[in-house]
Amino acid sequence: MVNWKNLDTLASFEALKQAEKLNLAQAMAGENGAERVKKYTVPMGADCDFNYAARPIDDKILAALADLAKEAQLTEKYAELYNGAVINTGEKRLVLHQLTRGQLGGKVVADGVDKRAFYMEQQEKVRAFANKVHAGEITNAAGEKFTTVVQIGIGGSDLGPRAMYLAMENWAKANNTKKMHAEFISNVDPDDAAGVLSKIDVAHSLFVLVSKSGTTLETLTNESFVKDALQKAGLDASKHMIAVTSETSPLASSSDYLAAFFMDDYIGGRYSSTSAVGGAVLSLAFGPEVFDQFLQGAAEADATAKNEDLLKNPAMLDALIGVYERNVLGYPTTAVLPYSQALSRFPAHLQQLDMESNGKSVNRFGEPVNYLTGPVIFGEPGTNGQHSFYQLLHQGTDIIPLQFVGFKNNQMGSDVVIQGSTSQQKLCANVAAQIMAFACGKSDEDKNKNFEGGRPSSIIIGKQLTPAALGALLAHFENKVMFQGFVWNLNSFDQEGVQLGKVLAKKVLAHETDGALKEYSDLLNI
Amino acid sequence: MVNWKNLDTLASFEALKQAEKLNLAQAMAGENGAERVKKYTVPMGADCDFNYAARPIDDKILAALADLAKEAQLTEKYAELYNGAVINTGEKRLVLHQLTRGQLGGKVVADGVDKRAFYMEQQEKVRAFANKVHAGEITNAAGEKFTTVVQIGIGGSDLGPRAMYLAMENWAKANNTKKMHAEFISNVDPDDAAGVLSKIDVAHSLFVLVSKSGTTLETLTNESFVKDALQKAGLDASKHMIAVTSETSPLASSSDYLAAFFMDDYIGGRYSSTSAVGGAVLSLAFGPEVFDQFLQGAAEADATAKNEDLLKNPAMLDALIGVYERNVLGYPTTAVLPYSQALSRFPAHLQQLDMESNGKSVNRFGEPVNYLTGPVIFGEPGTNGQHSFYQLLHQGTDIIPLQFVGFKNNQMGSDVVIQGSTSQQKLCANVAAQIMAFACGKSDEDKNKNFEGGRPSSIIIGKQLTPAALGALLAHFENKVMFQGFVWNLNSFDQEGVQLGKVLAKKVLAHETDGALKEYSDLLNI
Repeated sequence: MVNWKNLDTLASFEALKQAEKLNLAQAMAGENGAERVKKYTVPMGADCDFNYAARPIDDKILAALADLAKEAQLTEKYAELYNGAVINTGEKRLVLHQLTRGQLGGKVVADGVDKRAFYMEQQEKVRAFANKVHAGEITNAAGEKFTTVVQIGIGGSDLGPRAMYLAMENWAKANNTKKMHAEFISNVDPDDAAGVLSKIDVAHSLFVLVSKSGTTLETLTNESFVKDALQKAGLDASKHMIAVTSETSPLASSSDYLAAFFMDDYIGGRYSSTSAVGGAVLSLAFGPEVFDQFLQGAAEADATAKNEDLLKNPAMLDALIGVYERNVLGYPTTAVLPYSQALSRFPAHLQQLDMESNGKSVNRFGEPVNYLTGPVIFGEPGTNGQHSFYQLLHQGTDIIPLQFVGFKNNQMGSDVVIQGSTSQQKLCANVAAQIMAFACGKSDEDKNKNFEGGRPSSIIIGKQLTPAALGALLAHFENKVMFQGFVWNLNSFDQEGVQLGKVLAKKVLAHETDGALKEYSDLLNI
Repeated sequence: MVNWKNLDTLASFEALKQAEKLNLAQAMAGENGAERVKKYTVPMGADCDFNYAARPIDDKILAALADLAKEAQLTEKYAELYNGAVINTGEKRLVLHQLTRGQLGGKVVADGVDKRAFYMEQQEKVRAFANKVHAGEITNAAGEKFTTVVQIGIGGSDLGPRAMYLAMENWAKANNTKKMHAEFISNVDPDDAAGVLSKIDVAHSLFVLVSKSGTTLETLTNESFVKDALQKAGLDASKHMIAVTSETSPLASSSDYLAAFFMDDYIGGRYSSTSAVGGAVLSLAFGPEVFDQFLQGAAEADATAKNEDLLKNPAMLDALIGVYERNVLGYPTTAVLPYSQALSRFPAHLQQLDMESNGKSVNRFGEPVNYLTGPVIFGEPGTNGQHSFYQLLHQGTDIIPLQFVGFKNNQMGSDVVIQGSTSQQKLCANVAAQIMAFACGKSDEDKNKNFEGGRPSSIIIGKQLTPAALGALLAHFENKVMFQGFVWNLNSFDQEGVQLGKVLAKKVLAHETDGALKEYSDLLNI
C-alpha cells in the first residue's frame, strides 16, 4: 500500500528547499547552455521530446526531485490508479481515463465489468456509427448526408473536444480525412446557440448531446433550444441527435436520440477527450482511424509516464519542476504558449484540466494544507502572444514559468519564402529566440531596455502536430497534473468548488433570495 | 505641471496600507450586504453601471483611495494626456486614442496638424469607402460585390478588432446591419493564413493589411501568403487589398492597395480599436453607423473618467481598488469573466491592453520600482468558466480578484423557457450567484465542501451588449489601465519588452547563433 502524505511532511521536500538555487541566466549562457539543451531532453512518445534545459534545475536539484518522487511514491500511486484503486476518494470512484487508450496494468473490473472492454466496445459503436454516417447509410429524413456535427456540452464536454477539433482540423484537410465540419454550443447564454444555429445548415446537421448525468442544466437548455430550431425548420429532432452519457442516465435509452454512446463515473469531464465524449465528435469530423491515432499517441505518453527513472519520465519531470517553481521559488502562475495556431484553444483546455484538478486547499482526507497548490494557467499561441502579453513576461515584476510547444513542420504544407525564410522557419526561430531571451536576458544601461533574464521555460518539440502528437501532448499534461496532485496530496479528480454557485443560482431562479443576492438579482432583471 | 512620483513615496499610500482591512464575507452578508450593492455603484455611460460592492473596500478605504488619487494627481495627469502632453516619454510621443472618439479638452495640434480633425478625416474616408463597397460601387474585377473582409494584422491590429467584431456580430445579425463576414489572419504560422484561406471565397474577399510602420514581419509575410493565393486564383491582388498604416509608411502610397487609411504614432496598437485599425474592418462588416455608435459609447466612458470625484469615476475606482488588491492585499492575478458569449475574446484583448501597458519594472524615468506593477490578466466567458477553472477561484490557495460583466438582455432576442426561466435569466442568475458565493462562501464541516469566501469581485452591468455599450466597456478598461499606470508611475504606452525576442529571432534566421540558441535552432530544424 502507498502512503498519502502532505508535501510539507516529506524529508525530501525539506532537502529540496535547502538545495542551492540555480542562476538560470548564467547556466544557459555559452557552451554550458548548449550542453544543457543537449542533455536535459527526454522523449514523450509520438515523435515528441520534452526539453527542460531552460527550467531552473541542475543535476543536484534533479537528484533532490528524484528523492521527492521516490518518497512521494509517484510511480506507485500512478500504478494504483491505473490498476483500479479508488483514487477519487471524495466521490469514491476509480480514475480510468488512461484505460480508454490502452491497458497499462492488470485488468480493471468494476461493477462486474471489464472496463477496458467496455471503453473499447463504446469506441467500436462510435466507429460503426461514424462510418455509416460517412457512407450515407445514416442520413437525414430526406436521405441526404449529414455535413455538420454540433457538440452540445459544457466544461469537459466542450473545452477538450473543441481544442482537439481545432488542433486537427487543418491536418485533416491537408490529409483528406476531414469528413464533417464541427461546431460547439456550450454557454447557457442564448446567443451562443442562436449564433451557431445562424451559421449552419440545420437540415444537414447532426447534434451530439453530451452530459454524463443527463441533468446538466446548461446542456439540457441548449438541447431544447436546438430542438426548437429543428422543429421550426420542420425537422424531426430525434433523427438529428445522438447522446453521449452514462448508462444510468435518463438519456441512455431515450427514443429522442438516433444512438447513445456511453461513458461512466470513472472518467472525469476534464479527462474525457479520449472517451466517447471526444470520440463521437472527432470520429464524425475526421473518421475513426484519425481518432485511433490520437488515442495511440496518448497511450505512448501514458507508457512513458510509468518510467521509474525520473530522467526518463517527462510528465513526472514537468510536474516536479513545476512544484519546485511553485513551492520553493514561489512563482504564482504558469503560461502555456504553443507555437501553432492549431493549438489556439489548447491553453483553455489546460486551464480547466489543471485549475479544476489542483486548485484546492484541502488534501485528499479533507484536511487544510499549509502550502500553495495549483497555479493559475493561461496562454495564447505564439507568435500572437509575443505581440500581446509577453511584455509582462519579459519585464514585469512577477516571474511566470513558461511552457512552450513547437513543431518542426506545419500541418498544411503550403508556405512562402519571405526575406530568405519560410513562415514555419520564422515561427520556430521566434520560439527558440524567446526561450533564450527569457532565460538569459540582456543588460542595457537604459533600464527600460534592460532584460533581467532568469525567466524559466521548457519546450515540447514535435515533428508535426499529427493526431498522435496531439494525443501525446494531451496525455503529457494530464499526467503532469496527476503527479502534481500526488505531490500536493490532493484529490485531483473531484470539483466540490463548483457546487455552491449552482445552489445559489437555483435560489435566484426560484426567487428565494434576500440581502445582497436579491439586490444583484434585481439589478440584472431576473 | 504635474508631479510624477513613485507609489511608495506617497504619504497617502502609507495611509492606505494602515487602513483597517475589510472582512468581505461579513460585509456582504445580510442587510448590510444589500445596502452595499445599492450604494457602491456608479454609471459608466452607454447604459452601463460599475458595481463594486463586492470589492474589499468600505467608506474608510475609499476615502484613503480618494486621497491617493489626489496625491497622485490622476485627474490632472489624464488632462495632460488628452490635452496633448508627451505622456509616452520613452518614445517621446503624445497619447491620443481618446481623441479618435471625442474632444475631451483643448485642440491638440501636433506636427502642425489638428489631430482630432485628422482622425475624423480618416473616419470619413473609411465611411465613404465602406459605403461604396456595400453599394456595389467598389467591387472585384468581375463587378461582383465583396462579401468577406479579412484583417491581416497582429497584436493590437488583431486582438482588439477581432474581439470587437465577435462582440458585435450577433447584435448586427439581429439588427440587420451585418454587411460582410470578417476573418482575421495574425500568426506567422503558415497554417493560420492557409486555414483562413481554405474557408473563404477569395474572389469575393477584401483584405485589410494593418501595420503602422509597414514593416511588421508577421503581417508582411501573411500579406505575401495572401497575394500568392490571389494570384493562383487568377486575381489581381491590388484590387482586393486596402491598407491601414501611417502616412510615412511605404504602404501609404503604394499602388498595391485599392485605398489606404491612416493612423499615427500617437495611437498605440493596443489602443487602436477606435482608430482606422478597428474602423476599417468594423465599418466594412457592420456599416459605418454601427462603428459611430461604438465610438459614441467609448466617448461617454472617457467623459466619466474625467470626474474629479472618485465616487463618480468608475475607471478610476476600478484602477485604485485594483492597486489596493495588488499592492496592499498582495493578490497576484486578475480574472475577467464576461457573462456573454459575444465577449469570448474580450479577455484576450484585455490581456494585451493591461499586461503590455503595465507589465513593467521601471518607472517612466527608467528607474527600477520597488513594488509590484501590472498583474497577469486572464479569463473566459461565464457560464463556461464555471465548468472549468472556477474550482481554483473558489477553493484554491490564491485569492484572485474577479471582474464580472453581465447584461440584462441578450443580443439576438430568441430564447427558450426551461424549468420556468429563460436562458438569459439562467445566465444572469449564475453571475449573481457567483458574486455572492465568492464573497460570502459557505462553511461546511466537510472541509472539502467548505467555501472560505472573502474573494472579491466587481460587476459591470449593461442593458444589452450594443455597440455603444461595447465602446464604453473598451474605454473603461483602457482608462483603468491608464490610471493604474499613473499610480505605479509607469510609462504605459511603450513596450520595450518585446524587442529582445525580435533581435534574437533575426539572428536565428540569419544562422548567426551559437551556444544554446544554436542547439534550440537545430532541434527545431531551422
